[in-house]
Formats: sequence, structure tokens, C-alpha cells
Amino acid sequence: MIIIGEKLNSTLKSIRPAMESYDAAAIQELAKKQYEAGAMYIDVNAGMFHEEEPERLEWLINTVQEVLDAPFSIDSPNPVAIERALKANKNSKPIINSITDEKERFNSIMPLAIEYKTGIIALCMDDNGMPETTKDRVVIAERLIEKLTKEGMDLSDIYIDPMVRPVGTGSHYGTVAIETIRQVKKEFPGVHIACGLSNISFGIPARKLMNQAFLIAAMAAGMDGAILDPLDKKLMSFVYAGEALLGIDEFCMNYLTKFREGALEV
Amino acid sequence: MIIIGEKLNSTLKSIRPAMESYDAAAIQELAKKQYEAGAMYIDVNAGMFHEEEPERLEWLINTVQEVLDAPFSIDSPNPVAIERALKANKNSKPIINSITDEKERFNSIMPLAIEYKTGIIALCMDDNGMPETTKDRVVIAERLIEKLTKEGMDLSDIYIDPMVRPVGTGSHYGTVAIETIRQVKKEFPGVHIACGLSNISFGIPARKLMNQAFLIAAMAAGMDGAILDPLDKKLMSFVYAGEALLGIDEFCMNYLTKFREGALEV
Repeated sequence: MIIIGEKLNSTLKSIRPAMESYDAAAIQELAKKQYEAGAMYIDVNAGMFHEEEPERLEWLINTVQEVLDAPFSIDSPNPVAIERALKANKNSKPIINSITDEKERFNSIMPLAIEYKTGIIALCMDDNGMPETTKDRVVIAERLIEKLTKEGMDLSDIYIDPMVRPVGTGSHYGTVAIETIRQVKKEFPGVHIACGLSNISFGIPARKLMNQAFLIAAMAAGMDGAILDPLDKKLMSFVYAGEALLGIDEFCMNYLTKFREGALEV
Repeated sequence: MIIIGEKLNSTLKSIRPAMESYDAAAIQELAKKQYEAGAMYIDVNAGMFHEEEPERLEWLINTVQEVLDAPFSIDSPNPVAIERALKANKNSKPIINSITDEKERFNSIMPLAIEYKTGIIALCMDDNGMPETTKDRVVIAERLIEKLTKEGMDLSDIYIDPMVRPVGTGSHYGTVAIETIRQVKKEFPGVHIACGLSNISFGIPARKLMNQAFLIAAMAAGMDGAILDPLDKKLMSFVYAGEALLGIDEFCMNYLTKFREGALEV
């Protein structure tokens, strides 16, 4: 599983004060902790700073790469902020998080992905808004993949996000997300599938339980990436259990190692 | 989910002494507790008593039905013991656990299922032993379903068990079980799929974690029954989360109720 560590996000109350006060040590600490806990990418988001977003995002990039050379997931819909982050980036190939098939967003962000040779998270969404059915999502995923590869992108640089909606607002949304994953992965085995997990449980209690259940169901359908909190030991335990269950972790080697390290929470 | 409570099993060290000493109160207590915790069927197994199995099984049936009218899952490969249990049974329609496509076992147990109008758990196994691949399992499931329905059984009385093997002894066994479930359920939407969960984690550590992961992956593939410990609150929490995630529990009503009752363990 490709883990994208979600903690350096200006919408999270726990870290926002450190961003506001330019507390580099706190930011660096959280980046390193996520990396050590298994994050392959470090997501950076400064969206809550509105017009200051570009310089704040640049500061986050510079602050983290002083101490860590893990690649970034540049989390913004704003091409100006994304470009500033890409210019500042000295670490290895980042991911842009995210593009959609909305015309304006696609046309402003896609050229940056090509110019800077990044990976990209592509949300199953277009100018008609969030699609209701599995079929509508798969159609958008197909279109996004077609357009991105036509521009020269490798399939392996594309991360399709099925756009998870809360199961508390529609009983079908869990199945819609799971089936979208299955169908896209079947049609395009070379693309990655990565989603934000926690949307599934928005508005219902015992959210961690639901997130764990969704993680496993999505992995079993073919999801191979996730934007999540790698410091959540229980959730990471399910990542390792899922990999062992699905034969991705051959002979359960990593599962057994994690157990010996005390990293599995039962 | 159709929960079959697994605790009244002579192979379990915790309950065997109560069976040995004919401790009716302890047996009744455990039956009632499982029922209250959500078991729809009460599994009874006296296999460890060997030649005494028939009378021990009859005693278990009589002991439990004195205080509980939940249906039984009669857990034996021995037609003599099964018939004795069926004769003693006064509760509603039981399940026989289990038949296989081994000739002798099939021919001796199938007539009992027909005569006593029971449900039946059918294991994907024949005289060639435990099949290695998904395809071999599906073929056996198809044959079992064909033979049982030809004898007059309703599809809804058949519970296919994919024969879960430990992922620690073969990295593919998780996927084999999950894919067998998916294919059988797709081909025969009217049959139930029920498996023993805990086999998946035999021989590896943190077994509860792996069992929880397998439960969710199997439910997402179409499993609608399970032989498990309903007193394991965490595992039952995943049953409720899985039902809400997969749209079986509309509007998450039962999930929310369980949360309010304090039954969800996060």
C-alpha cells in the first residue's frame, strides 16, 4: 500500500496553530513521525490560509525538505499554489493532489503535472458535480485516464480517487466506492487507486471502526493507496493485515515483522 | 448477517469441562449469552467425546432447548450423532454443519437433511481432498448445489462454506476464499455463504486482527453468514460496521442503535 500521510493539513485543528506561527520544528517533527510510521508521501495542505496559500505551501515544502527527503503530495486545487510548491520542491517526484475532470481545474493543473513530471490524484468528478452511481464514476475515471495518458502521463503516475461519500448520507455510497475501485482496477490494472478514507464515516459515530472496515473492503477491491493518518497504529495494523490477507505480503513476512516490532494493535 | 454462535464446541478448552461434567447451568448460560449477543443459531459440537458423541450431542440439544428456542447448528460429520440430535430437537429449523461432496459423507447426511427439513452447511471439498484453487472450489460448490436442490432442497437452505485455509500456510488462501465467495454468490444469489472465520489466522500472531480483516473482505464479497464468537464484542462491531458500509443496514440504523447501546468497540 502506498500510504500518503495526511497530518500536515491546515484544516486539521491539531496542526494549524503550528502552521500559523511558522513553528518549523513542530512541522518537521510531524513529517518525520509520519515517514517513520510508514508514510511514503507527505501530504501538505495550506488551503485554510486562502490568499496566503501559495507562500504558506512553499514554506511547508521548504520546512519539511530541510529534514526529510520523502516525496510530497501537494494538496491544493489552486494552480498558483501548486506551481509555487513544485518550484520549491527538491525532493523526489511528488504527487499533485488533486485534479478532477472539471474543465477549468483540469486545464489549469494538468500542464503543471506534465511540466514538472509529477504523479497525480484524479478525482471522479466533473462539471456536473459529484456523480451518484458507480457507472458515472467509472466513466469519469476512464475519461480522466484517457486525457492524462494522451498528454504523455504513465498509467503508473495516475492515482484514481473514487470520491468517497459518507455512508451516513446514503446507504449505497460504500458499495459505490468499492465497486468503482474494482471496476477501474479491472479495466486499468496499471493505474493506482488511492482514496481519502475518512469521508466514509463523516457524520456517524465510531468513525475509526468504519474507516478500518472501509480500508479492508477497498483493499480487497483493488485499492493500493490511501490518504490516512499513519500515526493511527490500529489503522496501520489493518493495512498490514489486509496486505497479508490479500497475498500482497508474501508469506505474511511484513505482518510477522510488524508483530515482532510491536506495531500490530489487536 | 446470519451469526452462528460457535462457543458450545467440545474442542474448545474453555467449555469442555462443563460438557464433561454435564454442567447444564454453564451450558445454558453460554447458549443464552450467545443468543443475546446476536447469534441466530447455536452451534453444538460433541465431537471430542468420540463414541459417546451421539448421546452427548443429544444432551446438549436437550439442555439448551430447556431454556432457549433458538435454532441449532448441529456440528458433526457423524450421521448417527446428527440423527440423534435431530430427533431430540424441538426448536425451529436447524442447520446441519456440515456436508461435503465426499461420497460417503454426502450419501449418509443428505437424506437426514431432506427427512428432517433442515438447512445445511456445504463445504467445498470432495474425495480429492481440499481443493487448491478458486476454480476447483467453485466447481465443487456448483456440484453440491445441483445435487442438494435436485433432492428438493431450497437454495435458501444451503450455506456454502468456501473452506477457509490459513493465510500463514499459503499467501493465496485469503484471495482464494474471497474469490470463491464472490463467484458462488454471483452465480447463485439465492444461496447463503457462511464460513468459519478463524481458520484464516491459524498459526500467525494477532489472530483477532486478521479475523476482523477477513470478516470484512468476505462480507464485501457476498458472505452473509459466519460461524464465530458472538461474545467477541470487537468482532461483532465489525459485523455491524460491515453491514452499514455495504448498505445492508439501511441508513446505518442498526449501527447507530448498537452505538447507543454501547455495543460498538472502536
